[in-house]
Amino acid sequence: MAERITPRSESYSDWYVDIVLKAQLADYSPVKGTMVIRPRGYALWERMQAALDRMFKETGHVNAYFPLLIPESFIKKEAEHVEGFAPELAVVTHGGGEELEEPLVIRPTSETIIWSMYKKWIQSYRDLPLLINQWANVLRWEKRTRLFLRTTEFLWQEGHTAHATAEEAREETLKILEVYRVFAEQYMALPVLTGVKSESEKFAGAVETYAIEAMMQDRKALQAGTSHFLGQNFAKAFDVTFQTAEGNLDHVWASSWGVSTRLVGALIMAHSDDKGLVVPPRLAPTEAVIVPIFKTSNKDAVLSYARSLHKKLAAEFRMHIDEDDANSPGWKFSEWEMLGVPVRIECGPRDMENNKVVLVRRDTGEKIPTDFDQVADTLRPLMTEIQDNLYQRALTFRNEHTRSIDSFDEFVKFFEDDGGFAISPWCGSAECEEKIKEETKATIRVLPAENEKEAAGKKCLGCGKDATNVGVFARSY
Amino acid sequence: MAERITPRSESYSDWYVDIVLKAQLADYSPVKGTMVIRPRGYALWERMQAALDRMFKETGHVNAYFPLLIPESFIKKEAEHVEGFAPELAVVTHGGGEELEEPLVIRPTSETIIWSMYKKWIQSYRDLPLLINQWANVLRWEKRTRLFLRTTEFLWQEGHTAHATAEEAREETLKILEVYRVFAEQYMALPVLTGVKSESEKFAGAVETYAIEAMMQDRKALQAGTSHFLGQNFAKAFDVTFQTAEGNLDHVWASSWGVSTRLVGALIMAHSDDKGLVVPPRLAPTEAVIVPIFKTSNKDAVLSYARSLHKKLAAEFRMHIDEDDANSPGWKFSEWEMLGVPVRIECGPRDMENNKVVLVRRDTGEKIPTDFDQVADTLRPLMTEIQDNLYQRALTFRNEHTRSIDSFDEFVKFFEDDGGFAISPWCGSAECEEKIKEETKATIRVLPAENEKEAAGKKCLGCGKDATNVGVFARSY
Repeated sequence: MAERITPRSESYSDWYVDIVLKAQLADYSPVKGTMVIRPRGYALWERMQAALDRMFKETGHVNAYFPLLIPESFIKKEAEHVEGFAPELAVVTHGGGEELEEPLVIRPTSETIIWSMYKKWIQSYRDLPLLINQWANVLRWEKRTRLFLRTTEFLWQEGHTAHATAEEAREETLKILEVYRVFAEQYMALPVLTGVKSESEKFAGAVETYAIEAMMQDRKALQAGTSHFLGQNFAKAFDVTFQTAEGNLDHVWASSWGVSTRLVGALIMAHSDDKGLVVPPRLAPTEAVIVPIFKTSNKDAVLSYARSLHKKLAAEFRMHIDEDDANSPGWKFSEWEMLGVPVRIECGPRDMENNKVVLVRRDTGEKIPTDFDQVADTLRPLMTEIQDNLYQRALTFRNEHTRSIDSFDEFVKFFEDDGGFAISPWCGSAECEEKIKEETKATIRVLPAENEKEAAGKKCLGCGKDATNVGVFARSY
Repeated sequence: MAERITPRSESYSDWYVDIVLKAQLADYSPVKGTMVIRPRGYALWERMQAALDRMFKETGHVNAYFPLLIPESFIKKEAEHVEGFAPELAVVTHGGGEELEEPLVIRPTSETIIWSMYKKWIQSYRDLPLLINQWANVLRWEKRTRLFLRTTEFLWQEGHTAHATAEEAREETLKILEVYRVFAEQYMALPVLTGVKSESEKFAGAVETYAIEAMMQDRKALQAGTSHFLGQNFAKAFDVTFQTAEGNLDHVWASSWGVSTRLVGALIMAHSDDKGLVVPPRLAPTEAVIVPIFKTSNKDAVLSYARSLHKKLAAEFRMHIDEDDANSPGWKFSEWEMLGVPVRIECGPRDMENNKVVLVRRDTGEKIPTDFDQVADTLRPLMTEIQDNLYQRALTFRNEHTRSIDSFDEFVKFFEDDGGFAISPWCGSAECEEKIKEETKATIRVLPAENEKEAAGKKCLGCGKDATNVGVFARSY
C-alpha cells in the first residue's frame, strides 16, 4: 500500500482516522459535523443491521417509520428530555417557501413523536404490549466530527415499547440489553460489560439507563448501546392512558433502546492494527479474497486456476477475486490487509503445479498451505477460529487493563499510567462522581448488578463514606 | 369487521384512505403533510426493499449513505435543478442553539451532495464506473397529505452512478428501468408501461427521464419509478472531471434513479377490493393465516389440530395462527380479508374429524377443501397461481381501458367517459401537450420507444401537424 497508516504507538486517534479514510469506510462531508458513509463502511453497517433486525424480530418486535420532523412544542413536554436535547437540535423554520407557524426540529430521538401516536393507538390493555422498532437517521448538533463516533447526523435503530406494567417494561429493557450483549460478543467479537448508568449519565427522560460498554485498544471505554426504562414519563407527558384488565385507567409504561453507526467505529477500534482494518468474519462483507500471482507468461493458466477456486467457494463464502493487473501481488497483499478481509488466498504458478494454495489469516498473519480440494473444509472452521480469536484477544486485553482499586491514590495513579477499567467503590453521590471526573477524567461507565454485594465494607473513592455500589470507572469516548 | 370500508363505486379516494387506515398500513402524523408508516405498512416496504436491494446488488451496485442536510448553495449550482426543487424545500436555519451562517436544506434528492463527493473520489477512468445506491428519507414540501402517494417526507432508494461515456450512462439508465419493470411485474404483480418522459415531465436536471407507469383501478396512471440520464449536467455543476484512458480530461457522465414508498400506495390501489387489502403472495408479510373454529367444549382439540398444521407449514411459509378467542370466526374471516393475507386456512371440529382443512383464496374467494397432509403441496402452487392471477387481472383491466385514439374529439370523449390510457399521436411540442392537458387533464405518461415508428402518417392530437411519436396519455396521480 502506497499510503502509510499512522502507527497506534504514534497517535491512536490519527491511526483511527487513517483507517477510516484509507479503508474508504467514511469521508468528511461538506457540511460541518456530518460524514459520508462510503460503500465499504456501509457494508459493515448492513451486516450489523441484518443480524440485529433478525434478533429484534425473534424477540417479537416489528418495524415502523415515524416522521423526521417533530413540532418544537413536543420536545418541551417532558422536562428532562428538553433540557437534555435542546442544545443539540437542528431547527427547520421554513418549508415550501414560507416561514412555519411553529418551528419543527429534526428528531434527535423519537420518543415524543412516537408517544403522540401511541396516544391514538392505545386504549386498552388489549392494545399492549406495543413492540416497535425503527431504523432511521437522527441529528444531534456537533461542532467537531469524529467519524462514526460523534457526528451531527447518524444512523441508528430506536426501539419504543409500551407496556401495561412497570415489571413488563423493565423486563423488556433488560431483554434488549441482553440482545445487545449477545450481538456485541457473538457478531462484533467485542466483550462488553453491562449495567445501569449513574443518574448523571442517564438518558434525558429515563428512569434508568442500562448500557453495554466495551474497551478500545487505547483502554478507553466506548458506550456501544443503551436501553432505557422510561417509567411513565412519556405516557404522562403525552397523556397516554389505557384501561386495565380490571377496568381501571393507568398511564402506560415504556422502554426505549438504541444502537447506532457508532458501532462501526467500535468495531474498527477494537480489532484493527497498524496494517489496517481487522473485521470479524461474521460481519465481513468479504470473507476471503483470492489473489492470483502471475506474470504475463503464465497469466491465463493461473487466472483459470484461481477462477475455478473462486467458483467452488462462492456458493458458500462471501468471496472476491482480485484479477487487477495494474498492481503487484505484494501491493495487493497490503491492500487487502488494509481493507480487513479475514483470509487472503494466494495462488501462484508453483501452488498451481502442486495443486495447492496458501491461506493467510488477517488476524495472526499465519500462512496455511492447503490442498486445492481442501480449501472449503479448511475455511469453514478457520472463520470460526478467527472470530473466536478476535473475541479472546479483546477479552484478554480488557482483563489485562481492568483492576479492582479501592484507594483514590491508586486510582489516580492508574489513570496517570496506562489506565483502563477501574472497578471501584462509590457512595452514590453525584458530587463524588463529579470530583473523581474532574481529577482523573474517569467517569462511571456502568454499575454492574453483580457488583452491588461487593460494596459491603468498602469506602467510596470520593468521600470515604460507606460505598453503596462498585462501579466500572474509565475515560471514555 | 365492525368498521365499514367505503365501496370503490361510492368514492375511490375514500375507499383508498379507508384501506390504508383500517388495515393499519399508515396513519396521519401531527406534522402537516407527513405520515406514520405503521408496522403492517412497513412490512410491505421491507419486502419490497429486500427484493430491490438484491436486484441492485446482482447488477453490481453497492449501498452508501450521504448526509441529510445540503448547503443551500449546492442546490443552486444546477440551474434546472434549483428551479424544480426550490418551492419544495425545508430549510434548517438554526443548529446547536445558533443561527447558521448558511442555511441547510433537507435533501429533496441527493444529486448535489453526492456529486460534491464524487469530485473528491473520481480522478481517473480507473475510478469509473461508480455504482452507488442509498436507502434514505427525503423531504419535498406538500400542503396536502395523500397517504403513501404524496407526502412531505417519504422513504426511497436513490441510485447515483458515474460513467466514463454517455453510452454507458444511458445503458445504466435503461438497465435500471428494466430492473424496475421486472420488479413491478414479478413482485408487485403490476403490469407497467415503460418509456421516456416528455420535456415538461422530466426530472429537474436530467437530459432524459424514463419511467414505469401503471394503471390503477380508477383508470388513472401512477408513476411507479423513474430512471434519469443526467448527461454531464451535475458533473459540470460540480466540476467533476476525469482523465480518460487516452489521457484527456472529460466531465463524468451520470444517471440517477429511484422508487419510493409510493409503491405501497400503488400496490394497494392496483389489487385491493371492497373487502380490503389484497397483496400478491411474494410481497405478503403473512402468506397464510390459520383460523381455528372452536367452541369452549372443543377448543383444546381444535387448537391442537391447528397448531400442528401451523408447525408443519411455518418452516416453508410465512404463517400466522389466530388463536384469539374474543372474536367470532366470522369476524376473524373479515378481519384477515381486510388485512390482505393471500390464503386463509379454516379448520373446525368437522374438518378435524375428516382430517381436512379449507383453504380460502383472498383474490377470488374460492374455497379449496384440502387433506391435512396435502396443505403444503397445495399451498405451494397456489401462491404462484394467486400471484399470476393478480398480474393477469391487472393486465386485463389495463388492456380493457387502453385505446388507440387518433382524433381529438374521440380523445376528449374517452376522458369524459371512463378514461384510461389513450395511445395517441403527438408532434413533440410543449404547447400541444399543455393544450391537451388543459382540456382533458390528461398528460403524456410515457413515450414508449416501440411506438415511434407508428407515428408515420399520423397527425398530432393537439395541432393536426405531423406526429413524431405516439404517447401514452392519461390522467395521473
